[in-house]
Amino acid sequence: MSRYVKKRTKSLGQPPGSLVHIGEIVTEKTKITVIDYNEKKYEHKTDVPLKECSRYFDSATVTWINIDGVHDVSVIERIGEMYRIHPLLLEDVMHTGQRPKIEDFGEHLFIILKMLTFNEEKDRVEAEQVSLLLGKNFVISFQEREGDVFTSIRERIQGDKGRIRKMGADYLAYSLMDSIVDHYFIILENFGDKIEELEEELLEDTSPKTSSRIHSLKRELVFLRRSVWPLRDIVNSLERGENALIKKSTLIFLRDVYDHTINIIDTIEAYRDSTSGMLDTYLTQMSNRMNETMKVLTVIATIFIPLTFIAGIYGMNFKFMPELGWKWAYPTVWGVIALVGVGMVIFFRRRRWL
Amino acid sequence: MSRYVKKRTKSLGQPPGSLVHIGEIVTEKTKITVIDYNEKKYEHKTDVPLKECSRYFDSATVTWINIDGVHDVSVIERIGEMYRIHPLLLEDVMHTGQRPKIEDFGEHLFIILKMLTFNEEKDRVEAEQVSLLLGKNFVISFQEREGDVFTSIRERIQGDKGRIRKMGADYLAYSLMDSIVDHYFIILENFGDKIEELEEELLEDTSPKTSSRIHSLKRELVFLRRSVWPLRDIVNSLERGENALIKKSTLIFLRDVYDHTINIIDTIEAYRDSTSGMLDTYLTQMSNRMNETMKVLTVIATIFIPLTFIAGIYGMNFKFMPELGWKWAYPTVWGVIALVGVGMVIFFRRRRWL
Amino acid sequence: MSRYVKKRTKSLGQPPGSLVHIGEIVTEKTKITVIDYNEKKYEHKTDVPLKECSRYFDSATVTWINIDGVHDVSVIERIGEMYRIHPLLLEDVMHTGQRPKIEDFGEHLFIILKMLTFNEEKDRVEAEQVSLLLGKNFVISFQEREGDVFTSIRERIQGDKGRIRKMGADYLAYSLMDSIVDHYFIILENFGDKIEELEEELLEDTSPKTSSRIHSLKRELVFLRRSVWPLRDIVNSLERGENALIKKSTLIFLRDVYDHTINIIDTIEAYRDSTSGMLDTYLTQMSNRMNETMKVLTVIATIFIPLTFIAGIYGMNFKFMPELGWKWAYPTVWGVIALVGVGMVIFFRRRRWL
Amino acid sequence: MSRYVKKRTKSLGQPPGSLVHIGEIVTEKTKITVIDYNEKKYEHKTDVPLKECSRYFDSATVTWINIDGVHDVSVIERIGEMYRIHPLLLEDVMHTGQRPKIEDFGEHLFIILKMLTFNEEKDRVEAEQVSLLLGKNFVISFQEREGDVFTSIRERIQGDKGRIRKMGADYLAYSLMDSIVDHYFIILENFGDKIEELEEELLEDTSPKTSSRIHSLKRELVFLRRSVWPLRDIVNSLERGENALIKKSTLIFLRDVYDHTINIIDTIEAYRDSTSGMLDTYLTQMSNRMNETMKVLTVIATIFIPLTFIAGIYGMNFKFMPELGWKWAYPTVWGVIALVGVGMVIFFRRRRWL
Amino acid sequence: MSRYVKKRTKSLGQPPGSLVHIGEIVTEKTKITVIDYNEKKYEHKTDVPLKECSRYFDSATVTWINIDGVHDVSVIERIGEMYRIHPLLLEDVMHTGQRPKIEDFGEHLFIILKMLTFNEEKDRVEAEQVSLLLGKNFVISFQEREGDVFTSIRERIQGDKGRIRKMGADYLAYSLMDSIVDHYFIILENFGDKIEELEEELLEDTSPKTSSRIHSLKRELVFLRRSVWPLRDIVNSLERGENALIKKSTLIFLRDVYDHTINIIDTIEAYRDSTSGMLDTYLTQMSNRMNETMKVLTVIATIFIPLTFIAGIYGMNFKFMPELGWKWAYPTVWGVIALVGVGMVIFFRRRRWL
Repeated sequence: MSRYVKKRTKSLGQPPGSLVHIGEIVTEKTKITVIDYNEKKYEHKTDVPLKECSRYFDSATVTWINIDGVHDVSVIERIGEMYRIHPLLLEDVMHTGQRPKIEDFGEHLFIILKMLTFNEEKDRVEAEQVSLLLGKNFVISFQEREGDVFTSIRERIQGDKGRIRKMGADYLAYSLMDSIVDHYFIILENFGDKIEELEEELLEDTSPKTSSRIHSLKRELVFLRRSVWPLRDIVNSLERGENALIKKSTLIFLRDVYDHTINIIDTIEAYRDSTSGMLDTYLTQMSNRMNETMKVLTVIATIFIPLTFIAGIYGMNFKFMPELGWKWAYPTVWGVIALVGVGMVIFFRRRRWL
Repeated sequence: MSRYVKKRTKSLGQPPGSLVHIGEIVTEKTKITVIDYNEKKYEHKTDVPLKECSRYFDSATVTWINIDGVHDVSVIERIGEMYRIHPLLLEDVMHTGQRPKIEDFGEHLFIILKMLTFNEEKDRVEAEQVSLLLGKNFVISFQEREGDVFTSIRERIQGDKGRIRKMGADYLAYSLMDSIVDHYFIILENFGDKIEELEEELLEDTSPKTSSRIHSLKRELVFLRRSVWPLRDIVNSLERGENALIKKSTLIFLRDVYDHTINIIDTIEAYRDSTSGMLDTYLTQMSNRMNETMKVLTVIATIFIPLTFIAGIYGMNFKFMPELGWKWAYPTVWGVIALVGVGMVIFFRRRRWL
Repeated sequence: MSRYVKKRTKSLGQPPGSLVHIGEIVTEKTKITVIDYNEKKYEHKTDVPLKECSRYFDSATVTWINIDGVHDVSVIERIGEMYRIHPLLLEDVMHTGQRPKIEDFGEHLFIILKMLTFNEEKDRVEAEQVSLLLGKNFVISFQEREGDVFTSIRERIQGDKGRIRKMGADYLAYSLMDSIVDHYFIILENFGDKIEELEEELLEDTSPKTSSRIHSLKRELVFLRRSVWPLRDIVNSLERGENALIKKSTLIFLRDVYDHTINIIDTIEAYRDSTSGMLDTYLTQMSNRMNETMKVLTVIATIFIPLTFIAGIYGMNFKFMPELGWKWAYPTVWGVIALVGVGMVIFFRRRRWL
Repeated sequence: MSRYVKKRTKSLGQPPGSLVHIGEIVTEKTKITVIDYNEKKYEHKTDVPLKECSRYFDSATVTWINIDGVHDVSVIERIGEMYRIHPLLLEDVMHTGQRPKIEDFGEHLFIILKMLTFNEEKDRVEAEQVSLLLGKNFVISFQEREGDVFTSIRERIQGDKGRIRKMGADYLAYSLMDSIVDHYFIILENFGDKIEELEEELLEDTSPKTSSRIHSLKRELVFLRRSVWPLRDIVNSLERGENALIKKSTLIFLRDVYDHTINIIDTIEAYRDSTSGMLDTYLTQMSNRMNETMKVLTVIATIFIPLTFIAGIYGMNFKFMPELGWKWAYPTVWGVIALVGVGMVIFFRRRRWL
Repeated sequence: MSRYVKKRTKSLGQPPGSLVHIGEIVTEKTKITVIDYNEKKYEHKTDVPLKECSRYFDSATVTWINIDGVHDVSVIERIGEMYRIHPLLLEDVMHTGQRPKIEDFGEHLFIILKMLTFNEEKDRVEAEQVSLLLGKNFVISFQEREGDVFTSIRERIQGDKGRIRKMGADYLAYSLMDSIVDHYFIILENFGDKIEELEEELLEDTSPKTSSRIHSLKRELVFLRRSVWPLRDIVNSLERGENALIKKSTLIFLRDVYDHTINIIDTIEAYRDSTSGMLDTYLTQMSNRMNETMKVLTVIATIFIPLTFIAGIYGMNFKFMPELGWKWAYPTVWGVIALVGVGMVIFFRRRRWL
C-alpha cells in the first residue's frame, strides 16, 4: 500500500473520538520520559510509570513529557484524562497518517509534525509522526518510536546551554519544532549530493539506470514536498502570536523557524526544477542518440544494399549474359561500385550525416 | 455518454423549479425510513407511508427521514410540501447530475454530496447523489438507491453509542456527512494498493497493459478529484458556523471532517503526481527499450551487410576475375571479413553500444 | 480568419461610440418583435415598425423587444434614442466580436452573452452574440439572426406557465439568460457522447483519424471554455444583487443560473482533462506499436542477415575453397544455420521480445 | 541581443535620474509638434523650436506636445525643466526598454505604452516605446520615431469630430491610449489569419516548414503577451479614477479601453492555446507518419529478407547438394517462397499493418 | 553538492543565535572599510581595526562600514556587540546560504541580497551573499569577498556626485541595493546574447551540443529566478515605507528599484519561455530529421531488397531452371527490375516521400 494513506478500516463506522491506533506498530512498549526544569531545578526521569505523570500537571516548573510509542490505547487515554485533552486530539495522536497541522484549543496548542529520515536501503524518505501538545507549563511530545532527534535539546536543558532554562514551555515547544525542521536540512543535503552526482553522470555517461534514478529522486521529492508544505501554515499561524500560550519573546525565534521552512520549501522546489530539467536532458540525449544510431544504420545500409544488388546481378547464372564474357567487365563493376559508394558518401556529407 | 453530464433534454425549456428526474432510475420503488429519537426515546419505522411523515414535522425529538429513490415526482413533491422545501431544492434533489454544493436557506441547510463506490467490474469509480436537508429538528436524506453507508449510524443511534442521542439534528447531519467522507478513504486505499502494484510492475516487467492501467488509474483520479474537490468549500462553509442551525458544540466535529477532506484531497493530489510520474517512467522505459532495439538492429545490420557485399562480389560469374583463381584468395577474403567484423565491433565498443 | 477576433478595420480611427457593424451579416432584414404583458394583459406583435416601439417605453407593463439582426445602423440608432441607451453600448451591440460581459449603467443593465450551437457539418462550435438590455419595465434583446432559443419563454408568457407573468422585467431577463445557459448543456451532451465514442475507439482500434478527432475535440473545448468562462463573473455580479433593477425575489433564481454555470465550467474542465488523457493514451499506444514494429523488424533482420551472409560465403566462386568439395559441408552449413537461428531466438526470448 | 533587454551598460553606475539614452536611435533629429485647442480655438504647429514650448504651460487651452525622437538629452532635459517633470520620469522616457507602466506623481500622470507593429520582413513583432505625460492642461507624448498612429486623432481635433474638442487633456490622453490599443487588433487579425492558414496546412499537407512556422508564431505570441499584459493594470488603475487629473466623464471611456484590453489579452491566450494545439497536432502527425514509414520498411524487409536467404542457400556452390539435382527442386523453392510470402502478408493483415 | 543548499551540519543541534560560519571561505582575512560623510565632511579609511569602529556609532554623520569576509566569528561578534545587533541576525550573516529577505527590527532594518556574477569558465551563475544592516546613521554591509560592485558609489560619495552626500543613511542603503540590482542587468544581457546565438544556431545548423547548451541555459535561468524572485517582496516591503528609518524622500527612488526588479523578473520569465520554445523547436527538428532519416532508409531498402531477391533467385544453382537457358531471360530480368524500381518510386512519390 502507498505511503500516502494508511489502512483505517479499523476505525470505520466508529463514533468520532474513538481511540484506535492506525499505522504500523514500531515500538514494543510505550516508554515515558519526564524532564522537569526551571532556571534552578533540573529533574530527568526515564520509564516513568503512568500514574506519576499527573504529579507534574500543576507544577510551576516546565515539564516535558515525552512518550515513545502511540499504539497503546490505555496509556494515551490515561494521559488524556490527566491533562484534560480533547478525545479528538488523542484520536489524531493515534492515527499516524495525519497531515501536519495545528489546532488551537485555547488552553492547549496541538501540533502534528512529520519527522523525516532517509532510508538508504529502500532508497526512500520515511516519515514518522510527532505530535506536540503545549499547555501552560508543560509540553507533551508523542513519537512513534524512540529517536535521537531531541537529544541535543535534552543536553541543552541539562547543561543549561543557551536560554532554554530561562524560558517557558512555549520556548521548549519551539525548540522541539526547530530541531525537527533542522533535520530536514540533512535530507536536503543528501538530495543535493544526489542531484550533483546525477548532473555529472548526465554530462559524462548515461545508462537506463540514470533515468530510473532521476525518476526515483523525483518521486521522493514529491513525497518530501507534501510532508513539508503544510509546515509553512503551521509556523506562520504560530508566529502571528494569536494564542496566549506563545509569549512575545518566543515569537522572534518562531520567525526564524519560519525562515527555515521557507528556505526548505524553496530548495525542494529548486530540486524539483532540477530533476525535471535533468529528465528533459536525459530524454533529449536519448533522442539524439537514437538519431545517431539511425544515421549509422541508414548510412551503412544505404551504401551497401545497392552495391550488394549489383553484385547479385552478376551472380545470376543465365546462359546469355554478354557482360560475363567481357574482358573489362569486372573492373568496370568495381568502378560502378566505387562511383555509387562515393556518390552516397557525398550525399550524406551534404546532409551532414557524416 | 460521459459520467460528467447527464441527459437533461427532458427539463429543457421547463420553468425553473419543475420537478423532472434526471439520471438513471436505479430503484424500483421509493422507500421511506423514519428514525425518531432523543436521549430517552427511540423509534425506527421502515416503509413508512408518505402521509405519516408530516407527523414528525413539529416534534421536539430529532427525526431522520431517509428516502431511497428520487425518481418519483409525487413523493418528492409531497415531502416538499410537508416540510416547506423550496421547489428549486426539490429540483436539485431529482437532477442527480449536480455538483456537490451547500445552500443556506435560513431555516433549511441543503447539502448535496456524492457517495462514491469503486465498481471493480467496470474498473471505474461510480458516484451516487446523496442530498441532505437539515431543518430545526429533522434531517431528510435522499439517496438514489438503498445503501449500507448509514448502517453504522443507525446502530449508533439504536445502541446509544457515542454522544449521538444527546445531540441535535445538526450532529446527525454531521454524522451522515462524516460517514460519507469516511468511505472515501476506502477508495483511496484501493487506489493506493493499485499504485503500489503498478510501481512494482514498473520496476520488474512492463507491457503495453501497464500503460493502459496507468492511464485508466489517472482517468479515475481525475473523476475522483472532481467529485471530492467541492466538498472542501462545503465543509468549510459549515465549519465557519454562520448558520444558526449548526450549534457550537458540533463545530469542533465539523473541523474534524474538514481535516479529513483536506487529507483526502491531498492524497488524491499525491496519487495524481504518482501516476504522472509512473507514466513518465513508463515512457522513458519505452524510449530506452526502443533505443536498445535499434542498437541491436544497427549492430547486426552494420556488421553483416558489408560482409555480405564482399561475399556477393566473389559470387559474380565474370569470366575474367583474376582473384577467383588465386590460391590464397579464399583465406584472404576470410581475413578481410574478420578485419571488417572486428573493426566494427571496436567501433561499436567505442560508442558504448556493446 | 480565426474565430477569436473579427475584422474591425472599418472602425479603426473612428471616435468612440461610432456605430459600425463588425462581423458577418447573417440576416437580411432586421426584424422587431414586441411582447407586452403583465399578470392580466398579453400582447404579441411581430415585424413591428420601428416608430411604434417608443410607445412601450413608459408603460407599466413588462415589455420585451426582440431585435433579430444587428447590422442596420439606423435601426440600432433609433432604438438607442428612444430608450436613451449610451452610444458605447450600441457600439458593443453592433461589434459582434465582444467577450461576454456585464455593464451596470444604473438605470440600465447591459449584458452580452454568447449563444452557442454545434455545427455538425463544419465540426465546430459556433457563437452568436446576444445582447440584453434591462431597463425598469423592459428588456431589449438583440440577436444576430432569428433563432428558436427563446420560443419556450414566449410560450411560457403566452400560456401563463410558471411565475413569469407575475414577475417583472428582471425575471424576464433572468429567463432569457437561463434559456441560453440551458442550451449549453446540449453542446456538453454532444461532446460527452463524442468523448465516450473516442474512449471506446481507443480501447479497440485506433487510426491516425482518432488522433485528429481528439485534437479537433480539444480545440473546440478551448473555444467553448473561452466563451463560457466570463459568464461566471457576469452571473455572480448579478446574483450579488447590487443593482436596484434586480429584485430580491429574482436573486434565488440567479443563484440557480450561477450553479448551472459552475456546473458547465466544471464539466468543460473535466472534458479537457479527458481529452488530454486520451491524447496521452493515443501517444503511448503509438509508442507501444512503434516499439512492436521495431521488434518485428529487428528479430527478422537479425536472424536472417547473418544467415544470408553464411550462404553468401559459399556462393563465392573461388577455385580453391576446400569446403566446397567436402562431403558433409552442405549439411554442416545447415547445422550452423540452425544453431545461429536457435541462438538468436533464445537471445530474443531472454529479452522478452518473442 | 534579445528583444527583451536593451544594452544599458552606458547607464551603469550613474546616479539615479541621469539622462542617458538606451536603445537604438531610429530618428535623426528630434521633432516637436504642438497642437493647442479648445472648443473654439485650433492651432497646429510642426517643428516647433524648443523655447516656444514653454509658452503653452499655463494656457487654459488643451496643449498636446508630441516629440518624435527621444535620444537627444538636451531636448528632453529642457522639456523636463519647462514642465517641471521629475528626473526619474525623464530617465524612463529615454530608457526605451521599459515595461509598460503608470506612475502617479499627483500633478502628473506618467504612462509608458508599447506601440506594436508587425515587421513582415523579419517576421516578428516590433515594439516602440510611447510615453505619455498628462498634466492639468497638457499632454506630452514621446515617440521613438515619427509614426502615423495618432493621425486620426489629429484629424478628429482639426475637424472637430466626436467630442474631443469639448473635453479636456484627460480625454486627449485617453484618445491617444485608445488609438494605440486599437492598433493591437491589427496585429491580432494578422495572427488570426496566420493561424487559419496553418490550421488548413495541418489538415492537408505538412512539411518541416510548417513546424518552424508554428514555433515562430508561438514565439511572437509570447512577445506580444508580455507587451500587452501590463496594460491591463495600467488601464484598470486609471479607470478606478483615483487621480484628480482624470475627470469623471472620461472614466466611462477608459472602461471601454479596459474592455478592449481584456479582449486582446483573451485573444492572445486563445491564440497561444491554438498554437500549442497545432504543435501537438503536428507532432502527433509526425509520430503517425514515422510509424507508417516503419511499417512499410518492416513489411518489405520482413517479407524479402527470409526469401533472399532461401535463394542464397541454393546459390551456394557445394559439390554435394542433393537438392540441386532434383527435377522439381526449382518449382518447389518457388512454392516455398510463395508460402512464406503469403504467410507474412496474412501475419501483417492480422496486425492491421496492411 | 548543489548550489541550493549549503552544508550546515556544523550548526545542527546548536542553540539558536550560535555564530557558526556556513559556506565556503573565499577571503583570507576579514577587511573593514569605513566611509564617514555628510554634506561637508568626507573620511575614507581602509583596513580599520575593529575597536575603532565603535567610534562611529553615535556620530551625526552617515557611516558606511563595509566588511569583506564573514567567516571570522570574533569580528562578527564584536561588530554585533558594538552596534547592538540581535544574535539571530549575526547568525544569518554568517550562514551564507540564506534566501534574500528583509527583517524589520524597529531600530534596525536587515536586508540579505544576492550579488550575482556569471562565471564564464564553469558556465554558471554564482551567488555571493551581501547583508545590509541599516541603522539610524549608519549602514553596515557584509560581503563574502572583496568586490568592485560598490566602487561607483564610493566615487559618487567622494566626488559628491548626485544627491548622495545630501541624503541620509537610508539613501545610502538604497544606493547599495540599486547597484546590486543594476548588476543583474549585465547577466541578463549576457543571457540575451546567448539566446540570440542559440536562436540563430537553431535556424541554421544544430548538433547535440545545441541541446545541451539550451538545457544548461535553462538550468541557469531557474537558478537566477530563484535568486531574484524574493527581491520583489523585499523592495516592495521597503517601498511601502512602513519603517521610520526610510525617509519619504527616498521612497520614490525605491519605487524605481522596484520597477527594475519587476523588469528583471519579467525578462527572466521571457527568457524561460524563450528557452522552452527553443527546446521544443530543437525536439521538433530532431523528430523531423529522424523521420527524414527513416524515409531515406526505407526508400533505399524497399527498392533494393526485392530487387536483390530477384537477382538471388537466378543466382541459384539448380540444374533444372528453364529460365536460365532462355535467350531473352537476362534482358527480361532487367525489365522486371526496372518495372519494380519505377513502381516503387511512383509509390513513394504518391506518399510524398520523394
